[in-house]
Amino acid sequence: MPAITPTPASRQPGYHDDKAAVLARLKRIEGQIRGLQRMVDDDTYCIDVLTQVSAATKALQSVAVQLLDDHLRHCVANAVQSDDLGESDRIITEASRAIERLVKS
Amino acid sequence: MPAITPTPASRQPGYHDDKAAVLARLKRIEGQIRGLQRMVDDDTYCIDVLTQVSAATKALQSVAVQLLDDHLRHCVANAVQSDDLGESDRIITEASRAIERLVKS
Amino acid sequence: MPAITPTPASRQPGYHDDKAAVLARLKRIEGQIRGLQRMVDDDTYCIDVLTQVSAATKALQSVAVQLLDDHLRHCVANAVQSDDLGESDRIITEASRAIERLVKS
Amino acid sequence: MPAITPTPASRQPGYHDDKAAVLARLKRIEGQIRGLQRMVDDDTYCIDVLTQVSAATKALQSVAVQLLDDHLRHCVANAVQSDDLGESDRIITEASRAIERLVKS
Repeated sequence: MPAITPTPASRQPGYHDDKAAVLARLKRIEGQIRGLQRMVDDDTYCIDVLTQVSAATKALQSVAVQLLDDHLRHCVANAVQSDDLGESDRIITEASRAIERLVKS
Repeated sequence: MPAITPTPASRQPGYHDDKAAVLARLKRIEGQIRGLQRMVDDDTYCIDVLTQVSAATKALQSVAVQLLDDHLRHCVANAVQSDDLGESDRIITEASRAIERLVKS
Repeated sequence: MPAITPTPASRQPGYHDDKAAVLARLKRIEGQIRGLQRMVDDDTYCIDVLTQVSAATKALQSVAVQLLDDHLRHCVANAVQSDDLGESDRIITEASRAIERLVKS
Repeated sequence: MPAITPTPASRQPGYHDDKAAVLARLKRIEGQIRGLQRMVDDDTYCIDVLTQVSAATKALQSVAVQLLDDHLRHCVANAVQSDDLGESDRIITEASRAIERLVKS
């Protein structure tokens, strides 16, 4: 479980304006995972299950790319514009580590 | 949507003996995706959502690796032992393509 | 072949201060690729070759993460601070697409 | 550095028949890595360097997929046909671990 940093009440997460779209994508991915359970339950051929696992993985990566885009556009941009160099440095380092986890997963 | 090749009635999918374990992993991933929806709904900080997306992606990749291992151990091994060279060639080409989709996703 | 956008003469690439480090990493990766050629030339066992391919892939991904970090820290931060909203939007979209190519490769 | 398991003198690596093609691919990747060094040396714009890093990463993944395909087709198939269950089990576990390293890199 990751440590959960609450977004300050005064600030919205970067994906605020895309919240409905992000939720819709996650809902669709939940459907794909349930579909996978049905496939396995029905003894579907391995390769067909694997094709669906690849599709769900790609869908999750697309959510990540959207969240990162929103994060750069809002949270990182706000920190850079705040002229607080320490905060700007901290938030870019944090974004790079998130990118690293995604690139290496 | 992938074309669904039904497993011949006479043959079980490669993951037959691991079915309960695969279903348990998928159930857990479904929980992770629902957790992601709650996080987004609660305006959780972008980076924390991204960390959970990476975790769910890795969990899906682990399911894929288990399915591939079972597929090699059962379906591919059976085809190779059948001495039907055409079938053996076909099933290895099919496995390589599935591996390619996973490596490139 | 990608279209090459020359960095404006007036501006240095984001990795300017890390140039020596980036070149050293790429030199090391070139050595890994040559090592792979020697391994194949010597008929080294497939799995050992594959282990080295994974290592070289990870090393390339680390170069990408460093380049992205420098890009956010310099090029993206400069665009955001320029108060040119169109340019800021363009450069973030461009960065997100580069991240997408890396996450999906 | 990985431990190097020498291929038994009596046995050729799985890629034996594709050796020239694998070497040609690796030679081309070496060229891509050198091209990357020239780009960095010439202060090429970050995003163009990143595009080439993605291309080289994909090329390395394609070599991996070819090596795995050859490995399944020859080394794994031979082990399965040998009727030595212990050896067959060992070589499939080893292949699955190599696939895991690739999928997670």
